[in-house]
Amino acid sequence: MAKDKFIYFFGEGKAEGNGNMKNLLGGKGAGLAEMTAIGLPVPAGFTITTEVCDLYYKNGRKYPAGLKDELIKHLARLERVVGKKLGDPKDPLLVSVRSGAPISMPGMMETILNLGLTDASVEGLAKKTGNRRFALDAYRRFIMMYGSTAMGIERADFDAAFDRIKDTRTRRRCGIPAGQKVNDTDVNEEELDALIKEFKAIYKAHIRSDFPQNPTEQLWGAIGAVFGSWMADKAVTYRRVEKITGVVGTAVNVVQMVFGNMGNNSGTGVCFTRDPNNGEDIFYGDYLVNAQGEDVVAGIRTPIKLSEFEKADPKAYRQLVQVRSTLEKHYHDMQDLEFTVEEGKLYMLQCRTGKRSPIAAFTIAVDMVREKLISKEDAVLRIKDKDIEGIFYPVIDPSQKDELKRTYLVSGIDAVPGAAAGKVVFDAKTAEEWAAQGKTVILVRRETSPEDVGGMHAAKGILTATGGKTSHAAVVARGWGKCCIVGCEKMDIDYSRRLFKVGDKVVKEGDEITLNGTTGDVYQTSLKLIQPELPDAYQTILQWADEIRRLRVRTNADTPYDAAHARKLGAQGIGLCRTEHMFFDTPERREAIQEMIVAEDVDSRKRALAKLLPIQTEDFRGIFKAMDGLPVTIRLIDPPLHEFVPHDEDKQRQLAAKIGVPFEKVKHRVEQLHEANPMLGHRGCRLTITYPEILDMQVTAIITAACDCAKLGIKVEPEIMHPLVIDRKELKILEERTRVVADAIIKKSGQKVKYLVGTMIEVPRAALLANEVAEVAEFFSFGTNDLTQMTLGMSRDDAGRFLPDYVDEKKAGVFKFDPFQSLDQSGVGLLVQMGIERGRSTRKDLKVGICGEHGGEINSVKFCHRVGMNYVSCSPFRVPIARLAAAQVVIEDKRAVAKGPASRPAAKAAVVGRKPAAKKAAPKKPAARMGAAKGPKTAAARVAVARGAKAPAKRSLSAAKRK
Amino acid sequence: MAKDKFIYFFGEGKAEGNGNMKNLLGGKGAGLAEMTAIGLPVPAGFTITTEVCDLYYKNGRKYPAGLKDELIKHLARLERVVGKKLGDPKDPLLVSVRSGAPISMPGMMETILNLGLTDASVEGLAKKTGNRRFALDAYRRFIMMYGSTAMGIERADFDAAFDRIKDTRTRRRCGIPAGQKVNDTDVNEEELDALIKEFKAIYKAHIRSDFPQNPTEQLWGAIGAVFGSWMADKAVTYRRVEKITGVVGTAVNVVQMVFGNMGNNSGTGVCFTRDPNNGEDIFYGDYLVNAQGEDVVAGIRTPIKLSEFEKADPKAYRQLVQVRSTLEKHYHDMQDLEFTVEEGKLYMLQCRTGKRSPIAAFTIAVDMVREKLISKEDAVLRIKDKDIEGIFYPVIDPSQKDELKRTYLVSGIDAVPGAAAGKVVFDAKTAEEWAAQGKTVILVRRETSPEDVGGMHAAKGILTATGGKTSHAAVVARGWGKCCIVGCEKMDIDYSRRLFKVGDKVVKEGDEITLNGTTGDVYQTSLKLIQPELPDAYQTILQWADEIRRLRVRTNADTPYDAAHARKLGAQGIGLCRTEHMFFDTPERREAIQEMIVAEDVDSRKRALAKLLPIQTEDFRGIFKAMDGLPVTIRLIDPPLHEFVPHDEDKQRQLAAKIGVPFEKVKHRVEQLHEANPMLGHRGCRLTITYPEILDMQVTAIITAACDCAKLGIKVEPEIMHPLVIDRKELKILEERTRVVADAIIKKSGQKVKYLVGTMIEVPRAALLANEVAEVAEFFSFGTNDLTQMTLGMSRDDAGRFLPDYVDEKKAGVFKFDPFQSLDQSGVGLLVQMGIERGRSTRKDLKVGICGEHGGEINSVKFCHRVGMNYVSCSPFRVPIARLAAAQVVIEDKRAVAKGPASRPAAKAAVVGRKPAAKKAAPKKPAARMGAAKGPKTAAARVAVARGAKAPAKRSLSAAKRK
Repeated sequence: MAKDKFIYFFGEGKAEGNGNMKNLLGGKGAGLAEMTAIGLPVPAGFTITTEVCDLYYKNGRKYPAGLKDELIKHLARLERVVGKKLGDPKDPLLVSVRSGAPISMPGMMETILNLGLTDASVEGLAKKTGNRRFALDAYRRFIMMYGSTAMGIERADFDAAFDRIKDTRTRRRCGIPAGQKVNDTDVNEEELDALIKEFKAIYKAHIRSDFPQNPTEQLWGAIGAVFGSWMADKAVTYRRVEKITGVVGTAVNVVQMVFGNMGNNSGTGVCFTRDPNNGEDIFYGDYLVNAQGEDVVAGIRTPIKLSEFEKADPKAYRQLVQVRSTLEKHYHDMQDLEFTVEEGKLYMLQCRTGKRSPIAAFTIAVDMVREKLISKEDAVLRIKDKDIEGIFYPVIDPSQKDELKRTYLVSGIDAVPGAAAGKVVFDAKTAEEWAAQGKTVILVRRETSPEDVGGMHAAKGILTATGGKTSHAAVVARGWGKCCIVGCEKMDIDYSRRLFKVGDKVVKEGDEITLNGTTGDVYQTSLKLIQPELPDAYQTILQWADEIRRLRVRTNADTPYDAAHARKLGAQGIGLCRTEHMFFDTPERREAIQEMIVAEDVDSRKRALAKLLPIQTEDFRGIFKAMDGLPVTIRLIDPPLHEFVPHDEDKQRQLAAKIGVPFEKVKHRVEQLHEANPMLGHRGCRLTITYPEILDMQVTAIITAACDCAKLGIKVEPEIMHPLVIDRKELKILEERTRVVADAIIKKSGQKVKYLVGTMIEVPRAALLANEVAEVAEFFSFGTNDLTQMTLGMSRDDAGRFLPDYVDEKKAGVFKFDPFQSLDQSGVGLLVQMGIERGRSTRKDLKVGICGEHGGEINSVKFCHRVGMNYVSCSPFRVPIARLAAAQVVIEDKRAVAKGPASRPAAKAAVVGRKPAAKKAAPKKPAARMGAAKGPKTAAARVAVARGAKAPAKRSLSAAKRK
Repeated sequence: MAKDKFIYFFGEGKAEGNGNMKNLLGGKGAGLAEMTAIGLPVPAGFTITTEVCDLYYKNGRKYPAGLKDELIKHLARLERVVGKKLGDPKDPLLVSVRSGAPISMPGMMETILNLGLTDASVEGLAKKTGNRRFALDAYRRFIMMYGSTAMGIERADFDAAFDRIKDTRTRRRCGIPAGQKVNDTDVNEEELDALIKEFKAIYKAHIRSDFPQNPTEQLWGAIGAVFGSWMADKAVTYRRVEKITGVVGTAVNVVQMVFGNMGNNSGTGVCFTRDPNNGEDIFYGDYLVNAQGEDVVAGIRTPIKLSEFEKADPKAYRQLVQVRSTLEKHYHDMQDLEFTVEEGKLYMLQCRTGKRSPIAAFTIAVDMVREKLISKEDAVLRIKDKDIEGIFYPVIDPSQKDELKRTYLVSGIDAVPGAAAGKVVFDAKTAEEWAAQGKTVILVRRETSPEDVGGMHAAKGILTATGGKTSHAAVVARGWGKCCIVGCEKMDIDYSRRLFKVGDKVVKEGDEITLNGTTGDVYQTSLKLIQPELPDAYQTILQWADEIRRLRVRTNADTPYDAAHARKLGAQGIGLCRTEHMFFDTPERREAIQEMIVAEDVDSRKRALAKLLPIQTEDFRGIFKAMDGLPVTIRLIDPPLHEFVPHDEDKQRQLAAKIGVPFEKVKHRVEQLHEANPMLGHRGCRLTITYPEILDMQVTAIITAACDCAKLGIKVEPEIMHPLVIDRKELKILEERTRVVADAIIKKSGQKVKYLVGTMIEVPRAALLANEVAEVAEFFSFGTNDLTQMTLGMSRDDAGRFLPDYVDEKKAGVFKFDPFQSLDQSGVGLLVQMGIERGRSTRKDLKVGICGEHGGEINSVKFCHRVGMNYVSCSPFRVPIARLAAAQVVIEDKRAVAKGPASRPAAKAAVVGRKPAAKKAAPKKPAARMGAAKGPKTAAARVAVARGAKAPAKRSLSAAKRK
């Protein structure tokens, strides 16, 4: 990529760019170039690169030098190719100006059509097309789009003017009765002339200058609008919600206009090469006769299906079917196409990989492997974490037959499958607020717009009155796998009264409804939802993933039920069994633990613990049975004791009475347990250091249960884990006591039970001194929840007040993702990496895993693989995501190596959200020492790849310097 | 040191050991060997090494194989040299068995005298000495010491029996009237015979076997008692209080007995070669005629001064003066001697470096440099941190003349100078409890014992009724530089009624008294104390230190007064000016900051801040003036906002009324500010990220003040510091805003004011990513208070419940010192080191300092030098300690290098409390990369030295492997 080339041309079957240049040309630009090059009918045009956008923002919203000249050159070339000139009063060239980022941001970015029209050229167009009404309609659209998009005038101002003319002059002229809608197509030339006059007046009133009659000025204004849209709030929000990082800006596509609104042999459509809802291999889409593209996407009119299009215009349809086949073979994936038919001739306006529902993602991937379009590895790579989440989304329990009949309300278009039940809200803000309060909400809108994205994300389901399957609501919801019904036209929404009506039925804000996104049906109640059957394609993909991955996946489970459930989802053991959760199960358990805490001396503490012993033993028996043959990591008591005791006086009195201790004493003890910073207080193994009798009880329970199970022929592999360790000596004391207790029980039982003693690494000091800790610990489990809190000095409970600013790209933008959701790889990750490396420097075969939220988050799991962990552990429902991620990282790294070092930084930057490597040389050095890594490359190299390092050679240079 | 040599012999002018073998032979053993070798009169004997003690504990209290044979061999040699045999019924060899650790632990360890006496040999001794009473007296002492020390019988049981006999038979026989004391010397042979019988009966009653008549059995029992004393609670406590680490155990000295109790031409004494209180070059000590050594140390009888000894026994005294001169020239230091005169002949029993008062430490060091006994560097090395602390201890304000007369109570012996005022307590436990409640207490005891050490440490001053200047109370208090008066015999203490009387004056527990340790006077009130004049020797030493050190020393100061004070103490700038402290100074300030916090929008926040602006500006003007020519680091607002607002309803109502805001709103805002873990919450630069207008105000105040001062010709060097930074980008945002605000003011003022923008490194992530942070920061200041809390996951406020166990060698023993007092070098220190190294990898000239408690702690300051910091910053009163430490580390490292690698591990282990290096290879590697260090060796090497690394060669091996 030449540094000074800012614009790429395409047209006449040739293109300067190609489909691989998405980062530079954006998805749309790359697609247009590629389609042009493979001979598809694409209007000519050129793409201003994303680099220009990047430079524009880096230079304080100024264009780079040289852009202007290049634009003039390319515009001239376009005029030559098309044979028309911009602004030509006789036969003007009209262009569309559209944004196109490297990643799809549906509806987020700006589009301006019909650019080049002026008071003079509109007449030329009228004459040339012989259709003055069409020319005027194009002009009024252009003024409106330019005014609102490029110049920031409220779109509603234009709409109001249009409605006024329609409601007065058009209605009167056509004799349309009040109450009946006046269509845009009813408006005639005179009325359009008047409308254009009004639009220009609106423009002048706002901008204080005339609507520009110089097409070049129009073009620069439109380009500025596109670049401006990149940093608009809605776009920034979208990127954050979608976890999009590492993308420098949007490209601008300037393309010769073709017109879908030139009569009934014209039209515009959006389609998918396969069904994006279920993945079926059928041609799927919408078509609007006599319309421009924006009409489809905005969902203003309800379009017809492709089958009807075939009937209406079989010739144009055949061209489209041919394009479908060409593109799937070319791209090896399901495509999302935009096209226009201008007087019977097909033009392709866009081609990109199509978004799809979770089920469709699995089905298409597996089908394409069978069709030999892609490999198994490709199929595994194509599944996203949210596809797995989505596939587990609930459906309505079909056993509620009577209820279904009784509460049926209305039907719309089944845009995204799944089901959702919740309280109705009518705007995005309320949706976010109610969701934050823990309510489940359904967002009901006439139509959605990019401004609603936050509320859409917060809602469990989305219901709109207008729009088709490719409307904004449908596309966005599908990306999230979120239940969505659109085009539910019978629904009459009254925003001001916070209700909607269906006939005489009224649904108010806060009322409960249920959506069946699979059928499009809506019910006026909260129905019971159940888990769906998993499609075969899901099982197939995960089986392929299991064949590929090396990282093992365990689960966090505290009960036999959870353990068994997780095992069904593919868990290969328990990575975190939180023993204290068991204490809360029943009143008697709670009472015993409280008695233990209130105890004033060792003997009374031991008496209370003796009550807990049989209970814990029984729990462990159940868990070991469920995990027969698989390892089970059990963490000894962890939370500060004050979490176990009642804090209100009534309950304290009750406790005092029950355990026969004076109330004052209970109260005093609870007060005594108060801590200024409980996160950094008396908890974790500090409790068993202070009260070793708790350790004795818990180890006794674990090992007794293990011996009992062993007697029954169950294979047990208990791993006893001490939390919050900060020092070798501390762990040594606990380890010795653990072994004394455990070995005595094993000896007495006569069973052969092997167990491991290890530790959580969740305090920075433990990671820093991991080489010492590993002298004692047989395994490490990184507790990255706490490690994140301490490494960042950030309490998860309190961060709500400032963390959003830190994750917001437009504010501090310190983190790309919430570090409590996706591991902070550059900071906490560095400590994890050091911990592993140092631990294994002492104990080569140290077993290393992670437990906590990050163990089921896709980027974090990949990181865990790259730093050489043996396993991740996560919530049961996240086990499949971890299995997938563990396979994807193997494939990704393999391919990165195959591609060679040069391609890595850009390819990987987006994955882990890091800057390219140059500046990172220093802290990455420890990685160079990690000896115990597995796989074809060292862990260090793998992490370096993940972080976007330039090339191993670069790093060893500095290593050499060190000598 | 041969591995299998457990015992070292000395006698007849030859010794297997020498004075440098303190670690192996203990201080006493090494001293005896050295004195023997240089021809001083020392009784023959041998030393069982500290290694045996170490092995004894490592093997579960079992002696190592081979010890027994070696003991038999050495005993035989001793018998040969002395010409007597242990247990010989005609002329028995008697020995003393005494402990002797490598460090002095006065009164902590056990001593058994007269070992070898049995029913048979006592008569041999009687005949041989012709003094049966003497022999019997020796025997009863032996039984008592052996019974209590080796076998654990209460000493009081023996004392009671002795008192019974004295009070009945002796009193009657001698006709001593009731109320008059019967002296030990009044007891005659028959009564001693009876006493021995009773003592043996007591022994048998407790031990259930006869008093051992086999001297070898006695010897093993005594050796076991010495080793046992090493791990006694009082010894462990003493080591913790004294921060003694890296010492493996005590040695046992078995030495031929000489007798100071053979009549009036015999005696025993303790002396110092110079006055340990003021350092004056005079011979100083106590002598007890006709007594054994234990009588002096225990302070049971009040001894005579050396001047009286000279008169009483000029011949023996002359021998002693000769020894004094020999030893000072030999050791180049003031010595603490124990000696016995047996029938006119002097025997040296101990020789060690003498403890001294802080003033004496300075005076002796400077005098010895002038006497050319030592170098300036030696002098600097000899000063301890507590010497500096002690020299600042207050004295009684002499202006209170009438008050002094009116409240004078009594006088005792001036054991340790300085003054103390506080509430009287009568036992160590109460002293500790009251001190923990924040009360200042004076511990009043008849005499102190090692069990009292904790309470002595907690008390501001110590007053005892008995004992001389070398009694337990005096020696221990002197070590701490703590005001102490002993031998105050007119004081009649009634422990049971919690009071003491002097004549008819009564002082009850809780009453206030004042001690003048310099004169020995006690006053019955709490007098005003003032800071003493500093001796010239102090200024001389610190001037030498300043010439040697490279590390600069700044201070933490928030007011012009503190700044000026610290400057007088040698501060070279302000390293931490906490702007928020200024907010609390007056009600109007508090009100303005509270109004700012309660503000609901930017505008009202700005209005409140505008009130603070002139106040802060004026403060900074004052500070800059005081620091003319020196740098001033100013930290922007740091604590969470809830620390500024009132939490009780009344004050909230007052605030609401004053600032004209509804009470409910104030209350709500305060509630909103509550945090679960404020330490990890919304504070530090997170506040200025959220409320940048606070930054604007503070930077405006700083730079306006700087420009104002510059106009007056004052040289200002402001350094603006952003706290709690975790990321480059976060700091970048703040740095840019800081510069925009600052540069505008500077430009407007027309002054040339240079300022720096930097950050505190106090969150682990910032240290880990220091290379990135240093892209923006011009300086780092390590905030090791918070860094310790986060790295250890330990809240300073809450650690009280478990940290004592973690510092207690006998419990978890994870830390040698409280990590909030002395930097946790292995954990937090590693992060500090990484932070510096990585920071300088980006910005070679990065200025690095430390602020917070550790910056004034001696070991931590040395660490800061070794990791290459530019400066430390500490409280004003700790500035001299930091200056000293910074010089000492230069000398220590220079000497370690000169000594060569082999000697380093052991030499340094004690300094930083670390194990030798072998296992630490992995985490030390980052050090090898520290490029920017100054001085003759790299910082890495210096730290490695400090941590006890084997040799640089070792480390580069692994670096080579990495390539």
